[in-house]
Amino acid sequence: MRASIITIGNEVLKGRTINTNFAYIGNALTYAGYEVWRGLVVKDIEDEIVWAIRSVLEVSDLVVTSGGLGPTYDDMSIASISHALNLKLELNENALSMVKSKYMQSKVEMTSQRMKMAMLPEGSEPLPNPVGTAPGVLIQFKGKRIISLPGVPAEMKGILDSIIGRIRTGDRVYVEKTMRLNGIMESAIAPLIEDEMKRWGGIVYIKSHPGSIETSNPYIDIEISSYSSSVKEAEKSIGAILEEIRKRYKDYVGK
Amino acid sequence: MRASIITIGNEVLKGRTINTNFAYIGNALTYAGYEVWRGLVVKDIEDEIVWAIRSVLEVSDLVVTSGGLGPTYDDMSIASISHALNLKLELNENALSMVKSKYMQSKVEMTSQRMKMAMLPEGSEPLPNPVGTAPGVLIQFKGKRIISLPGVPAEMKGILDSIIGRIRTGDRVYVEKTMRLNGIMESAIAPLIEDEMKRWGGIVYIKSHPGSIETSNPYIDIEISSYSSSVKEAEKSIGAILEEIRKRYKDYVGK
Repeated sequence: MRASIITIGNEVLKGRTINTNFAYIGNALTYAGYEVWRGLVVKDIEDEIVWAIRSVLEVSDLVVTSGGLGPTYDDMSIASISHALNLKLELNENALSMVKSKYMQSKVEMTSQRMKMAMLPEGSEPLPNPVGTAPGVLIQFKGKRIISLPGVPAEMKGILDSIIGRIRTGDRVYVEKTMRLNGIMESAIAPLIEDEMKRWGGIVYIKSHPGSIETSNPYIDIEISSYSSSVKEAEKSIGAILEEIRKRYKDYVGK
Repeated sequence: MRASIITIGNEVLKGRTINTNFAYIGNALTYAGYEVWRGLVVKDIEDEIVWAIRSVLEVSDLVVTSGGLGPTYDDMSIASISHALNLKLELNENALSMVKSKYMQSKVEMTSQRMKMAMLPEGSEPLPNPVGTAPGVLIQFKGKRIISLPGVPAEMKGILDSIIGRIRTGDRVYVEKTMRLNGIMESAIAPLIEDEMKRWGGIVYIKSHPGSIETSNPYIDIEISSYSSSVKEAEKSIGAILEEIRKRYKDYVGK
């Protein structure tokens, strides 16, 4: 199962905000059994959001968006997603009562701008926001799922954590191990990675992460990961590769 | 002028690595006068990199990629970009001497895997890497530019900083100011933003960033930015808006 992530917001494109939401969502989806396939960052412009949704939906079983759920004029994620999927936008009574109760708690009046947060694509499910006002949104669409989350990190996490159990793939687990080699260059490990990737034929993924400059005092983190039917199964192949690395590069392990 | 950014690497999609490169590049390009239009994160898979390049090139004057320039089997950015642009990959003598001299300095032999870092699209310009081994690459293509940078942050920054002066748009500057309002909800500021955006008709961009939870102890950072022909010009419109905010929301400023 593949998942893609869309971040909506100019502040991320400008580098004003570091996209920590992306990393959090990517990590959660990976450990929920998804292969995260594409990540897109787009402006708060309807045409761009529509483009993003359509560009990832064709290659993904699940799409998670963050940003653009609030009450201001440039919060247009939900309307744009409706448009991308050709779904009607309608007042969702459950969402309305969620939004209303948040404002009532803080004795704030319900304006038309605030009402926007209860206008959802037909048939969608509002996801309670344990932290802020705007509900998340879950849309089931032609056997796929689209989940829209707010951009404020605490709100995004609160909603994602509450829904992750429901969207877990169920058929596979993700396991990842990292081994550090010191005093070795990335190019010296390239042959091992190539050999082992071939030997395990797609079950295991190996990647080297150079942690410093290649030619002076280098170290390499070798990441070995696998999607498998069980943790035990994954650890078998990963363990064999770790063993092979220890054998071939024993002078560089744990120095 | 529009710019887009492509990040290449599974580790970013998985959330293993927070994409700080993206923020650094986005910020540098914004202050060089570009409007950063799209950001894509793709896997180390040729078809995905080709898709990414083609998806942003049609809407961008400049494309900056990071990641996948090293010597390992899954460093395939340059070959994939060549393919996306239908350019031949050829041994670049300047790149070769850059790579060779790096390895000679550290007395490391030149292997075929290492040679890969000197195979560039025809007509492209290698950009010296002041920190690591793999040169960056500048490609001029049908009036547009593609710049490929390594994924290791220090190497990416070293090359980008050395080239940013050459790619500055020249015709405009970017100016941004932020004002914080305390004890106010994002939805309460929505009308002001709408009014001022209309009044200034596209010269100025205003966005509210809720800094905490909307209904309890909230604050809002209002970001006002403009691309203008001069700093003075930009500060005129931004200053007028800051004045208007101070007037309308005086009870919430600097409390």
